[in-house]
Amino acid sequence: MFDVEAFVENSLEDIRQFVGENRIISACSGGVDSTVTTVLVQKSVGEKLLAVFINDGLRRKGEPEFVIRTLNNLGIRTKLIDAKEEFFAVFKGKTDAEKKRKAFREKFYKTLGRVAHEEQINYIAQGTIKADVIETVKGIKSQHNVLEQIGINPEIYGYKIIEPLRNLFKPEVRKVAHELGLPADISERMPFPGPALSLRVLGEVTPQRIEIVRRATQIVEEEAEQLKTFQNFAVLHNDKATGIKNGKRVYGNIITVRIVDSQDAVTARARQVPYEILARISDRITGEISSVVRCLYDLTDKPPSTIEFE
Amino acid sequence: MFDVEAFVENSLEDIRQFVGENRIISACSGGVDSTVTTVLVQKSVGEKLLAVFINDGLRRKGEPEFVIRTLNNLGIRTKLIDAKEEFFAVFKGKTDAEKKRKAFREKFYKTLGRVAHEEQINYIAQGTIKADVIETVKGIKSQHNVLEQIGINPEIYGYKIIEPLRNLFKPEVRKVAHELGLPADISERMPFPGPALSLRVLGEVTPQRIEIVRRATQIVEEEAEQLKTFQNFAVLHNDKATGIKNGKRVYGNIITVRIVDSQDAVTARARQVPYEILARISDRITGEISSVVRCLYDLTDKPPSTIEFE
Repeated sequence: MFDVEAFVENSLEDIRQFVGENRIISACSGGVDSTVTTVLVQKSVGEKLLAVFINDGLRRKGEPEFVIRTLNNLGIRTKLIDAKEEFFAVFKGKTDAEKKRKAFREKFYKTLGRVAHEEQINYIAQGTIKADVIETVKGIKSQHNVLEQIGINPEIYGYKIIEPLRNLFKPEVRKVAHELGLPADISERMPFPGPALSLRVLGEVTPQRIEIVRRATQIVEEEAEQLKTFQNFAVLHNDKATGIKNGKRVYGNIITVRIVDSQDAVTARARQVPYEILARISDRITGEISSVVRCLYDLTDKPPSTIEFE
Repeated sequence: MFDVEAFVENSLEDIRQFVGENRIISACSGGVDSTVTTVLVQKSVGEKLLAVFINDGLRRKGEPEFVIRTLNNLGIRTKLIDAKEEFFAVFKGKTDAEKKRKAFREKFYKTLGRVAHEEQINYIAQGTIKADVIETVKGIKSQHNVLEQIGINPEIYGYKIIEPLRNLFKPEVRKVAHELGLPADISERMPFPGPALSLRVLGEVTPQRIEIVRRATQIVEEEAEQLKTFQNFAVLHNDKATGIKNGKRVYGNIITVRIVDSQDAVTARARQVPYEILARISDRITGEISSVVRCLYDLTDKPPSTIEFE
């Protein structure tokens, strides 16, 4: 049985000891993991914390504004880094999933490292949770925030890392969020991967292709909200397919919709969504996004697939 | 109102006049269109007909045997051409949908032309139907058997072509099949495209990739047979996605399942298949085909998509 009060109490003490007389950065993406981490650090060391939100250009619609507003409302001092162009530059020409993840990770840590250097802070808090650690160790994916596990020495980036949530699964993280008094739009937030929409564009990541998947994601989220699922999202394929727009043959884009139930992201089941909802999603995606001619639904559980495509 | 008796009577006479004292080849793929055409020609000119089945290596499992057996049972003299290696050779390195269609079409007509030359026959019957003509004219796709429409002069291949079904839609073709006394496994046959499984492998067509989609197609057909739909099939993506097999992360293949209702293939609706059946299809495809980690279902009507992906 998870004792959330004890966990919070111990964490505050651990963070206090780790930080000592130093200052600390918490990279906050707006997800439940990194926001809970950020709030824990704030409660522990107060003004020694600087929250950093890196706008990598890969976030969902309205997300940067949401994160900044949320952190402001929590009274957390926050720095916004606009790194959109830098991130798109590193993706240029890369189509391999693992190379894209690696490019994201390196750019993320370089950007964070630059902020740390400018601010003269070398302590970092990260929202790694247990599912990330397990999957990195098992080789399912390389989480960008599990550095030591994959043989990256954080020292080469010039900082020391604390991961207060690394022994928790997602439902426990949500309990901590409640315990900390966070609003429901944080504590009940759908999981969203670190590399964001870059994982949901198969093939090369460009501003145009991110914009297509961003619009599809918004449609899926709007229509699937009522389903209360663990996760729901859209993926843009690199493959194209024939379709008909305005009576003409076109060779257009394919979007896959993924809606899953899960407790901890370690296993997941594809939700059997009523066709009425799927048909509306499909009609909106092919109707509102001119380049998309085909909309697919992912039937696969995890295993044998993963939740994300990359 | 379609008068099937009059149609058959007129067709037999037209074919008789067209063939005259010559001999004629009918290229039969085993589909309802080309089989009905072949049987009409036989009823019209008897022994002047030579049916040709080209095994291009792109057919469904058991299909070549089925076609030969069917034509034998109908008492039609048939020549089997094994051209598997030649067809795979022309696909090598081609990933563009229209280039693949063109490569198929050219190899098909060259092969047929070779047989015609060897047999010294320069009359050919083909199973073109009205939907093929309409779609070629509208530019939806270039049907491999609508030569004149796309500016190919059949004369350069050295033969004259008759297309007895070119004014009929699919339901009328089935009525003709009944009128001719063809067995239900022909008259009620699901439509299957000329370029066969090559349209259902996005990206390069290789023997290995055709074998993957052939196995997936068999699973879809077995599980969807009870649904009595206009068409059902599997598509192999060129995109890959992450999955988990035997506890290990793999980068595996993606299969899309397409099941549609239609009258005439000019428009179509994605069937809202019960999830029990889709889950079984997905489990079998990812379980029985080791390289496949993900199974998707196509939600899109025609328009805005087409029935086939290429």
